[in-house]
Amino acid sequence: MNSMNFFKEDEFWMREALKLADKASYNTAPNPSVGCIIVKDGKCIGMGATRAAGGFHAEVCALIDSKKNNHNVVGSTFYITLEPCSHYGKTPPCVDQIIKSSPIRVVLSMIDPNPLVSGNGIKKLRSSGIDVLIGVCHKEALLLNIGFFHRMIYSTPWVRLKTASSIDGRTALYNHKSKWITCDESRKDGHHWRARSSVILTGIGTILHDNPLLNVRYVDTPRQPYRAVIDDNFVIREDANIIDGSKVFIFTSIVDKEKEKRLSDRNVEVILLPNEKVPNHVDLSLVMRFFAEKCFNEVHVESGAGLNGKLLSERCIEELIMYVAPIFLGDAFPIAKLKNISNLEDALRFSIFDSINIGSDLRIRLYENSKWDFLFRTTSKVI
Amino acid sequence: MNSMNFFKEDEFWMREALKLADKASYNTAPNPSVGCIIVKDGKCIGMGATRAAGGFHAEVCALIDSKKNNHNVVGSTFYITLEPCSHYGKTPPCVDQIIKSSPIRVVLSMIDPNPLVSGNGIKKLRSSGIDVLIGVCHKEALLLNIGFFHRMIYSTPWVRLKTASSIDGRTALYNHKSKWITCDESRKDGHHWRARSSVILTGIGTILHDNPLLNVRYVDTPRQPYRAVIDDNFVIREDANIIDGSKVFIFTSIVDKEKEKRLSDRNVEVILLPNEKVPNHVDLSLVMRFFAEKCFNEVHVESGAGLNGKLLSERCIEELIMYVAPIFLGDAFPIAKLKNISNLEDALRFSIFDSINIGSDLRIRLYENSKWDFLFRTTSKVI
Repeated sequence: MNSMNFFKEDEFWMREALKLADKASYNTAPNPSVGCIIVKDGKCIGMGATRAAGGFHAEVCALIDSKKNNHNVVGSTFYITLEPCSHYGKTPPCVDQIIKSSPIRVVLSMIDPNPLVSGNGIKKLRSSGIDVLIGVCHKEALLLNIGFFHRMIYSTPWVRLKTASSIDGRTALYNHKSKWITCDESRKDGHHWRARSSVILTGIGTILHDNPLLNVRYVDTPRQPYRAVIDDNFVIREDANIIDGSKVFIFTSIVDKEKEKRLSDRNVEVILLPNEKVPNHVDLSLVMRFFAEKCFNEVHVESGAGLNGKLLSERCIEELIMYVAPIFLGDAFPIAKLKNISNLEDALRFSIFDSINIGSDLRIRLYENSKWDFLFRTTSKVI
Repeated sequence: MNSMNFFKEDEFWMREALKLADKASYNTAPNPSVGCIIVKDGKCIGMGATRAAGGFHAEVCALIDSKKNNHNVVGSTFYITLEPCSHYGKTPPCVDQIIKSSPIRVVLSMIDPNPLVSGNGIKKLRSSGIDVLIGVCHKEALLLNIGFFHRMIYSTPWVRLKTASSIDGRTALYNHKSKWITCDESRKDGHHWRARSSVILTGIGTILHDNPLLNVRYVDTPRQPYRAVIDDNFVIREDANIIDGSKVFIFTSIVDKEKEKRLSDRNVEVILLPNEKVPNHVDLSLVMRFFAEKCFNEVHVESGAGLNGKLLSERCIEELIMYVAPIFLGDAFPIAKLKNISNLEDALRFSIFDSINIGSDLRIRLYENSKWDFLFRTTSKVI
C-alpha cells in the first residue's frame, strides 16, 4: 500500500466520500455502503453513494450526478471508499463505467476482499492508463463496512455488543428502576448503530423485564432492522411489545407447534436451533450462521447479563460498543454473567479501538484482536 | 480573562513552561510547582522551575539562568504558569524581581487563588507599565497544582483515587491471583501520580492481602511521599512491608499504647481519630483535615473495595484516575463496596475529565463537579 504517497487534499475528498457512504449505510445491506466523489480542478463535480440493494452503485450515481450538472469528467479524479467492482452482479461492473469516462486518476480507500473483485478492478483501471492510489482513510473505510467484509471472509456476520453501564460496570439496579443510566446523546448514538445493523438481537430476560420494541427511533432511517430473540425455553409472552407485525426471529430449543403457528401468523419466524451439548439451550454459533445465510452483515446485540455472558464466553462477539456513565452503582446487575475464573490468563481479552465523550458519558469501543488484524491486513494488501 | 487575545507562540512557550513545572512537581510540596520561561526575539533566554520548599521560585531561577548565559532580559517576555507572588514568604516577592529586570510583557496561565496574592501581583506588574496577559493554558496550569489550590480554598487536600480494573469493573480475582490486571505502562503512569502526591493512602485490607510497599519505584523522584493506612481496629502486623523505617501514618479507632510505642520506634505515627457516629471506625474527614494541617496538597489513594467505597460514600474523593484493561473478569472483587441503592438519583456522580490510551489500557479521569467548577471559575477571574 503506497499510503505515504498522498496529499492532504486526497484525504479531504476521501473523508467527504466516507460521509456519503456513512449516510447511506442504513439502507444498503446486504451490499457494502460506498461513497464516490468526482473532483476536477479542485472542485467536486459529482457525488454519489450506494443505493438500496439492486440500485446503482456509488460510482454510477456520481457519474449521473456530474452529467446532470453538465460537468465533463474527462481528466478528473475519482475518490471511492472501496475498490470498484469488476464483475457482473445485479448491476454491470463499475470499473468499465469509470474507464469509459476517462478520468486521469482514481483514489481508493481499500481493495475489496471479495475474491471476485480483490485487485481485479485496480488492474483493469491501471491497464487503461489510469493512475490508481490505494489506502487513503483505509481504516475508516474498513470500519464502515466491517460486517460485509467479515461475512465475506468468515461466513458469519460482525457481531457488535452494545452495553450501557455505570463506571463500575453495572447495567441496572436490582429493582430495575434504572432507566436510563446513560445520557440522551448516548442513546441517540446507540440508535445509529442499531440502524446500521441488519438485525437487533436480545435475550428473553430483557423481553420479560423491559419489554422493549428494539426498533430505530432516535435517528431517521428508511429501513428498520429485523429483530431477534434468544428464547431457550420458548417462554415469550405473545403480547410482548416486540411482536408488532414487523418480522421477528425467535430462536429456541423447545418445540411448541401451536404457539409457533399463532406467532407465525403475526410475522414471527420460530427457528429451532438446540445446542447438542447443552440441553435446553440454543446453539449461538448456529444462530450466527443462520444470520449469515440471510446475508446479514452486522448483528447488533442489546441484552442483559445472561445472554451477554453467553455470547462473550462462546466468542461470538467481534466488537463491543460500551456507553459508560461517570456514576457508581455498587451492588447491581453486571454487564455480563461469566463463570468464575481462577487465572487471569482465562479472562476474555479484547483490544481498545477508541474512546470518545458523548454527552456526559464515555463511549468505549473494543474489538476482537485476531479477526480485526486479519481483516486489516487483508484489505491493506500492496498491489 | 482575555483568553482570545493570545497567539500560537504564547501557547507554545507556556507549554514549555508547564513542562518545567511538571518535572519539578515531585519535589515542591507544600508549594505549588511553577515553571518560567523568558523569551526575547523569539528565543528562550532563561528558564526555571520552583525548587524544593524554601528554595528559589521559578521566576528567580529563570533570571539566574539568563544571567548565567549573559543574556539581557530587558524588553523580554516572561511566561509563567502562575501569577507571581507579591508578598514576603520564605523568599522575597518574585514580582519585584521581575519588575527590576524590565520585561515588556508577562504572560500568565492563571491568577493565584491564594488571598495573599490573588490579583496583587498582576496589579503591581501593570502599574509598572508591563503588559500582562492572563489565561494561556489555564486548565493545564490549574491541574498541575490542583491540590495546592484546593487546600487554599477548602482547607483539605485534593484526594485522588487510583483504580486498576477490568472493563467490567473488577479489580482482583477472589483468589487474589490477579497481579497485574493492567499493563506495565499503566503502572508506570500510576507511579507518576504517586510521586506528585504528598501521601499515599491505603486500607488495612490491602496491607493484609497484598502487603505492598506503596512507594515510588517506576519513575525517578528526589522525594518519596509519606504513606498512610486506615486501620480501624489497629490490626496491622508489625512485620508489614510498609513499615520500613520511612515515615508511616496509621489512623485507628482503637487504643493500644504498647503496640503504638513499638511502632513509634520504627517511625510510625499512630493517630487516634475515631468516628463518633460509627463505632470502631476512623473518621475519614478528620483524616483529610489532619493531612491539610500537615500542608499535604494531594492525597493519592490505592486501596481495595472497602476503603474505596467508604471514601466515595463519604464524599472524600475529588478525582478518580482509573486504569481499565479491555478484559472481562466476571464475578470478582468490585472497585468499590457501596451500599445498595434503590434510585438512580442516589448514585455517586462524577464528570469525565478525559480518557487516553496507555499501553493496551484505557486511562479515565473523573472529577467531582462542584469543586472543580468552583476552582476553575475562581482562577479564571477577569482582572
